[in-house]
Amino acid sequence: MHHADHHPVDLLLTDGRLATGTAPGYVAIRGGMIAAVGAMAEMPPIPAVETIDATGCLIMPGLVNCHNHAAMTLFRGLADDLPLRQWLTDHIFPAEARFVSPEMVYWCSKLAAAEMLLSGTTTVADAYFYEEQAAQAFSDAGIRAVAAQGVIDFPAPGVPEPAENVAAARRFVAAWQGRDPRITPAIFCHSPYTCGRETLVAAKQAAVDAGVPFFLHVAETAGEVAESRAHHGRTPVGYLHDLGLLDRHTVCVHGVWLDEADMDLLAMSGSQVVVCPESNMKLASGSAPLPELLAREIGVGIGTDGCASNNNLDLFAELARGALLHKGQRLDPTVLPATRLLELATVGGAACLGLGGRLGRLLPGSLADLVVIDLAHPRLTPFYGIETLVYGGAASQVRDVVVGGRLVVRERRCLTLDLPEVLARVRELAAQVRAGS
Amino acid sequence: MHHADHHPVDLLLTDGRLATGTAPGYVAIRGGMIAAVGAMAEMPPIPAVETIDATGCLIMPGLVNCHNHAAMTLFRGLADDLPLRQWLTDHIFPAEARFVSPEMVYWCSKLAAAEMLLSGTTTVADAYFYEEQAAQAFSDAGIRAVAAQGVIDFPAPGVPEPAENVAAARRFVAAWQGRDPRITPAIFCHSPYTCGRETLVAAKQAAVDAGVPFFLHVAETAGEVAESRAHHGRTPVGYLHDLGLLDRHTVCVHGVWLDEADMDLLAMSGSQVVVCPESNMKLASGSAPLPELLAREIGVGIGTDGCASNNNLDLFAELARGALLHKGQRLDPTVLPATRLLELATVGGAACLGLGGRLGRLLPGSLADLVVIDLAHPRLTPFYGIETLVYGGAASQVRDVVVGGRLVVRERRCLTLDLPEVLARVRELAAQVRAGS
Repeated sequence: MHHADHHPVDLLLTDGRLATGTAPGYVAIRGGMIAAVGAMAEMPPIPAVETIDATGCLIMPGLVNCHNHAAMTLFRGLADDLPLRQWLTDHIFPAEARFVSPEMVYWCSKLAAAEMLLSGTTTVADAYFYEEQAAQAFSDAGIRAVAAQGVIDFPAPGVPEPAENVAAARRFVAAWQGRDPRITPAIFCHSPYTCGRETLVAAKQAAVDAGVPFFLHVAETAGEVAESRAHHGRTPVGYLHDLGLLDRHTVCVHGVWLDEADMDLLAMSGSQVVVCPESNMKLASGSAPLPELLAREIGVGIGTDGCASNNNLDLFAELARGALLHKGQRLDPTVLPATRLLELATVGGAACLGLGGRLGRLLPGSLADLVVIDLAHPRLTPFYGIETLVYGGAASQVRDVVVGGRLVVRERRCLTLDLPEVLARVRELAAQVRAGS
Repeated sequence: MHHADHHPVDLLLTDGRLATGTAPGYVAIRGGMIAAVGAMAEMPPIPAVETIDATGCLIMPGLVNCHNHAAMTLFRGLADDLPLRQWLTDHIFPAEARFVSPEMVYWCSKLAAAEMLLSGTTTVADAYFYEEQAAQAFSDAGIRAVAAQGVIDFPAPGVPEPAENVAAARRFVAAWQGRDPRITPAIFCHSPYTCGRETLVAAKQAAVDAGVPFFLHVAETAGEVAESRAHHGRTPVGYLHDLGLLDRHTVCVHGVWLDEADMDLLAMSGSQVVVCPESNMKLASGSAPLPELLAREIGVGIGTDGCASNNNLDLFAELARGALLHKGQRLDPTVLPATRLLELATVGGAACLGLGGRLGRLLPGSLADLVVIDLAHPRLTPFYGIETLVYGGAASQVRDVVVGGRLVVRERRCLTLDLPEVLARVRELAAQVRAGS
């Protein structure tokens, strides 16, 4: 805070424990950015339009969920514990073909936004169809989003003609660039096995032209890798590299089945990798080599994946699952400390999505995306350190949420949306799914 | 309900979705037991002392947590992500030696009881020292418990002279038999590697004499099995069998490293096994062969283990971890459906603790231990089936809890204890631990 700053800040949080220390601290927010952070003992007089008392609470950066198909909340629990192919072909694909509509994407993405905000996630990277509706839902809900329009070489919701898929994505990106400072449009090629070579290259070019991130599902299952080797003589990562698609704006989601050469290519190209531990466990795809990715200093974010394969959007729980999974597998309790996973879900995720340096820290000049967690609950007591947010489970204790300086959750209520209405709309859609499935 | 029952029931829950169906139903409770259950459409007039409207909620049996060291809530998050030996010898053992006292066991067990009740657990099998304080805390909190006094061949909290350990356990059992219908005293021999042959046999005899369950940690780590083979020429299970300790009232906790012969012995003897997926992952002990145990029809319960190695007592989350772990490991998404884990956490756990047939079902004549879950939250919407309780995560949506017909949680508040006081007491103890560690 400069002394010249005698006009009030927009929002001042006081008396909270900061994630970075143990003494009570404050955070001052102006113009959507963090203006000042410090210990209460050293706080200067700061006039504020609105002040929140965070006594007994922890103040931390909001979490960044690096992979979601938000609208798939509609299919949460529709078909659990089934073989992947049966799950996809008998349940998810038919339900998507029948029930994905602009209205469905809007309301179900809004439900997802509510679930994420209420559990401490302030940024989401989403990937679906009718993405303009998802972007609108995120914008209305006040969650920060990288919203990526899906591209696939099949008739898709809103894009019945595959030859138009990249053009549709370009239009989406153009329509949303500069529209809402919290929404970054992007492009999501479903995968190297559902998009042809020309589509992959054209979609990446569209992303490059617009300067936006480019997402793909890559190496999710062993079968996908085997198929890629058979068709292209290359692993999926090798194939993408040959096509010139790997760079620091390309985000490879899943990365379960990566060999050493794949990881070398990812590291050299500066590509980002997003791991989704829970989805990969639930669909029995395997588990991504997260410790090895980190050892190579590859940029890594954590994603929940869509609700149909998780089945929740609680990123704190996802961090616990990631930490526990690898300890159990490798019989080494020191692998992936909870604090490391919290980094991946904040600064790591931000960097993954092209927001590195601007998001994920409680520092002056950072985007003011933060979460206030009420520590007065048995599952967070005692509170010796921030590991307890992960292993104790902090999602249900999120009290207040700020995104870009805007208070979007206060005392556990979304201020930006009418939750009973959202629940009712999604239940109506679910009743149709139930009747039709 | 007999027609002669014209005096009112104690408690009537109406208009809730029953776990066993989809139509709205009711549950009537009298004298601590379920008196009637059915669909609202067929509900006769039932006068009731107290009625709870469960519209928009699910009514299900309370969960049974089959292994805990409740007082260890004090050490939640004290030392995470460390090698097992360093965790135990540098942190947990010294902290226990210094800070375990009757007062600590009472308040920290009460905190655990609050955490369990608030997250839908109505029965806990506990194992610790100063167990009379734990039993008192459970009794005061109104949670059903099988409370087992620890026996170990080292000086222990409250039992400085190891030669007295079995006598102390006998005294504890005698003091608590018949004292509170919700509290079953029991005996917990720490393990076959910390108790000598005479102690194991004498402790089991004490349990047999009193007709109470007998718990041990068995085959938790690969090192333990190797040591047992070296010292006794037998696996831990084989050794216990040779000592005549395996029967249906013996509960073997962990069972991570079991071979075929071990499982045959467990099946033939009718012994119970409790698996603790999260603790075993976090401490990197391995993972119990849960599908194989179930295939042999061995009685299995699920436990959280103590908070120092989990670090929460959320049994719904534990079920999700168990389900996901095995799918991921075996690359088979059909392994351990969520519904199967819910069975293990209700009727399975009840049977494990000697309460089989009396607990874990919404049936007339069963003990009235049940939970009302508010479905009006994004993470449980839509709600196609009870799998969503597990994968969506139901703990934070527990609204009301009944144990033995007594309403112990109402609108998310413990009626039986002063939660701010409990939190304050445990925080005071934690401040001492922090200062001394």
